[in-house]
Amino acid sequence: MVDLTQLMEDEVFMAFASYTTIILSKMMFMSPATAFYRLTRKVFANPEDCASFGKGENAKKYLRVDDRVERVRRAHLNDLENIVPFLGIGLLYSLSGPDLSTAVLHFRLFVGARIYHTISYLLPLPQPNRALAFFVGYGVTLSMAYRLLKTRLYL
Amino acid sequence: MVDLTQLMEDEVFMAFASYTTIILSKMMFMSPATAFYRLTRKVFANPEDCASFGKGENAKKYLRVDDRVERVRRAHLNDLENIVPFLGIGLLYSLSGPDLSTAVLHFRLFVGARIYHTISYLLPLPQPNRALAFFVGYGVTLSMAYRLLKTRLYL
Amino acid sequence: MVDLTQLMEDEVFMAFASYTTIILSKMMFMSPATAFYRLTRKVFANPEDCASFGKGENAKKYLRVDDRVERVRRAHLNDLENIVPFLGIGLLYSLSGPDLSTAVLHFRLFVGARIYHTISYLLPLPQPNRALAFFVGYGVTLSMAYRLLKTRLYL
Repeated sequence: MVDLTQLMEDEVFMAFASYTTIILSKMMFMSPATAFYRLTRKVFANPEDCASFGKGENAKKYLRVDDRVERVRRAHLNDLENIVPFLGIGLLYSLSGPDLSTAVLHFRLFVGARIYHTISYLLPLPQPNRALAFFVGYGVTLSMAYRLLKTRLYL
Repeated sequence: MVDLTQLMEDEVFMAFASYTTIILSKMMFMSPATAFYRLTRKVFANPEDCASFGKGENAKKYLRVDDRVERVRRAHLNDLENIVPFLGIGLLYSLSGPDLSTAVLHFRLFVGARIYHTISYLLPLPQPNRALAFFVGYGVTLSMAYRLLKTRLYL
Repeated sequence: MVDLTQLMEDEVFMAFASYTTIILSKMMFMSPATAFYRLTRKVFANPEDCASFGKGENAKKYLRVDDRVERVRRAHLNDLENIVPFLGIGLLYSLSGPDLSTAVLHFRLFVGARIYHTISYLLPLPQPNRALAFFVGYGVTLSMAYRLLKTRLYL
């Protein structure tokens, strides 16, 4: 039987595992953030969620759309749209034998950029803060994709 | 050449593969569920989708938003938001050499909680059914992330 | 230490890596496509994004919903909903030792179907173009899930 713990002794793979776990945990934080704004602002999407605030017609006034809640939800969706490619491409890139310091630079830049993206989105900071954060993360993923396709293409 | 089938002989990894396949298949079921409600309620998002029900102005009345359809779409998006972290963190966790019974417990709890979440969302069941299902799945993923960062951190 | 480059010498895994990188890059293209339509049509979701077009009340007229932008966003979300299961199930399938030509056929069909789906959605082509593209990609993922659960079930 192959000793799987050996995979975890590969430094690039361990670095990928650490940074991925951090950025996915950050993304998960968006769910309680949405719930926080929904509860404090009493803005709900489902009738059963605001049943404790009133019955029937009285509860319907809580079924509305709120700017603040939508902002968190857009940040969450943007995370999904960018972290999913990082997850797939980054995993394959980590297994393709890249240079350790280059790989770690990629992972650090991506995680830093996505955290800054969330801060820019939620405060919000004026543009082009969020746009820059987006493009750094985007560029990192494209750079890993480029290396993969250049060295390991098999169609 | 490394014998990849050996990876599949690792029991934790095989368990992860089985539960992941099940929960991703469940998530995929949300697409036909949305299509079912769109077709039976004649609620569409694109003009080309309802072209067979009428032409021009006549077709426009089908381009609307429906509570039932939006409910399925919200359940689907919530699945994505929670299953993506499980996928990434769970894969790395499975490779980090956890105890088999602990790992299987994590996977079973997560898959059970997400299936119950979907049932609670679609029926719908009164709160806190859906909230509890959400938090069980959320806690399982965080518990795997915690173990990964505690034992394998490499920054 | 395990030589990870050996994993990349497995032909099925290399094919999976190539096709996954291509389809994830295609999905990433939806972000600049959304930005393109937002900028050329002056349709924004956040006040800070259109601050350069005017101040205060004057800027608010750009905070609106546009058919064209929403179409790209729906195509992007549909990509996420379908590529995430492909990513998870396809990775596990690739490691389960499938026949090379069968595996490559799966990957090619999926990538072709998803590219055709995007074209059908953005032009748009009349139905059932988009529906067919969707079902081909959907069927490919289910076929891989079926093989996984049939040969490697461990619950």
